[in-house]
Amino acid sequence: MTAAIAPETLGQAWDRLRARRPRVHCITNTVVQGFTANVLLAAGAIPSMTTDPDEIGDFVDRADALLVNLGTLDAERRRAIGIALDHAEARGMPVVLDPVFIDTAAPRRDFARALLARRIAVIRGNEAEIAALGPVSGSVLAVTAAVDRILGPTGDIRIANGHAYGALVTGMGCALSALTAAMLAAEPDPVLAAVAAFAGFGIAQERAAALSRGPGGFAANLLDALHALDADALARETKLA
Amino acid sequence: MTAAIAPETLGQAWDRLRARRPRVHCITNTVVQGFTANVLLAAGAIPSMTTDPDEIGDFVDRADALLVNLGTLDAERRRAIGIALDHAEARGMPVVLDPVFIDTAAPRRDFARALLARRIAVIRGNEAEIAALGPVSGSVLAVTAAVDRILGPTGDIRIANGHAYGALVTGMGCALSALTAAMLAAEPDPVLAAVAAFAGFGIAQERAAALSRGPGGFAANLLDALHALDADALARETKLA
Amino acid sequence: MTAAIAPETLGQAWDRLRARRPRVHCITNTVVQGFTANVLLAAGAIPSMTTDPDEIGDFVDRADALLVNLGTLDAERRRAIGIALDHAEARGMPVVLDPVFIDTAAPRRDFARALLARRIAVIRGNEAEIAALGPVSGSVLAVTAAVDRILGPTGDIRIANGHAYGALVTGMGCALSALTAAMLAAEPDPVLAAVAAFAGFGIAQERAAALSRGPGGFAANLLDALHALDADALARETKLA
Repeated sequence: MTAAIAPETLGQAWDRLRARRPRVHCITNTVVQGFTANVLLAAGAIPSMTTDPDEIGDFVDRADALLVNLGTLDAERRRAIGIALDHAEARGMPVVLDPVFIDTAAPRRDFARALLARRIAVIRGNEAEIAALGPVSGSVLAVTAAVDRILGPTGDIRIANGHAYGALVTGMGCALSALTAAMLAAEPDPVLAAVAAFAGFGIAQERAAALSRGPGGFAANLLDALHALDADALARETKLA
Repeated sequence: MTAAIAPETLGQAWDRLRARRPRVHCITNTVVQGFTANVLLAAGAIPSMTTDPDEIGDFVDRADALLVNLGTLDAERRRAIGIALDHAEARGMPVVLDPVFIDTAAPRRDFARALLARRIAVIRGNEAEIAALGPVSGSVLAVTAAVDRILGPTGDIRIANGHAYGALVTGMGCALSALTAAMLAAEPDPVLAAVAAFAGFGIAQERAAALSRGPGGFAANLLDALHALDADALARETKLA
Repeated sequence: MTAAIAPETLGQAWDRLRARRPRVHCITNTVVQGFTANVLLAAGAIPSMTTDPDEIGDFVDRADALLVNLGTLDAERRRAIGIALDHAEARGMPVVLDPVFIDTAAPRRDFARALLARRIAVIRGNEAEIAALGPVSGSVLAVTAAVDRILGPTGDIRIANGHAYGALVTGMGCALSALTAAMLAAEPDPVLAAVAAFAGFGIAQERAAALSRGPGGFAANLLDALHALDADALARETKLA
């Protein structure tokens, strides 16, 4: 299966992302909003982040992709998510769902499961979160682990890029979900988009770690590495397995 | 017009800011709260950020300046803004309005226009946001662009400091609005205060960029450069046009 | 009194924290959530941060310690705090209270005083905040100042570690409160836990400052220093007085 994806294809997706500068509306948790916005900006996308039900429709209408992240969920965010998905569906806009911590709280798990009735291009989470979702059909699953996995309709692609410091910085997974949403605005195939986002993010982590003494410097260096990432890096450093 | 502002005047405003250590109460969006607070601290001011209507009056009463930023607006923030402005007006406290993204959502634009009936010293935004406000009287307009413009009662001052990395870090404009509020507590002339804040922030950006590989390192280096900024830097590196 | 604490004891508490990897549920203000989470991760703990009353019970049930920080308080957070404390008490879980800014707003001060009826292991604040609490019994007081003080049932321990840059980065005190909560999951004696957290945080600040040009680099370097901190550093660099 992995032979079907040439690293050049991934670099081309990144080039298109940079050329298009997509707007990504992010409903995401307050812990990681700043870092997520900085990852999107460093990668060449434009973030917006309101969660107010009264105005989120206007924001989604102007966006090219939507991220729905369930961290720090509350009643207002639940309502905003419904409105945002309505607007995204009406425009055929790609949606990424990040079911943060649904393995920890039952109300959040049930809310996430109800969202599976919606049109979601990619669901990104760790193994426990994806397992807690239960059966999923029609969405690509993008699973973060020591070796990441992208589970699409035709098989399973493994990506071995990344660095252990990533687990020591809050919001790494959340930011990767936002980056996947941005990539969907440049690459309509959800498997290719997820692989491009994961590989690029992992390569940037590796380059950042080589310059870092610990997780604090790593977070800043990761933004620098994402900003400098080019198609050549994707072609040479992507590790599919 | 610009001949009327000597760079020495700007350095003196910064010296007074450092000596006074003003308290700035910030109603601002959750994406940028941390970075805004760190910019204020690095520049010598003291931030507070509650948005709870029950206690915001007590916080504004102890502040020296107020920032009203409309990002991540919600019902509670709208109510808190009204209370905060009542307290600020009762004390003759300077107010900065940052009409984030009012060009994107009509409810937010209408809310911002209604605020124009209040006493606002400086309104800072980008060109699209300022255009969406419609006619403004009685407030200085501070417009962020490739060359920034401060539009006061007696003319138009242009400031050519800054660096392109500033557009790749979330909250740069929001933090500059907060810094302008801090400067108003040290320099009562709103044109001078805005020019001092913009010039100092732009110089700090230039110095930070010279030490940075990308936007991640730049954000940290900007805080260092703001902390080290002195009247001599203002006198020698300000680029008015 | 201070002769009773050997620096080796503090290093052992840090070693246990790293071995246990405790989960710390943090009800904390939106300004500092990201930095607090990164401090916990760098120190070896695992943060969670929801404030939704509907699901906070599930999160606290899975945690090893609870932080209650009163910054950016609102009605939902007040309700969540009550539920979280009920769950923590039912499980005998250690709790840290951080009464941010209760010297500024009366409603917040009254809310904090009402919390004193709960079982709180450690209260961490600055001198003005601790003074505003009024009489406290049954909790260790951990007071941040030029020389920090830990006030326990048998006396007063002074800790002289730390660096002035700490006052120029938002959320330093809030993050130290979270770190104290993490330490309580590894060291049940609240005096020892607070001293270990304060000494380690102060040593990490000193090491970070030696590598920094200003507060921006300092914040990143502090995370690196916390990640690298070991029992040997505690044994050699702790300054009790």
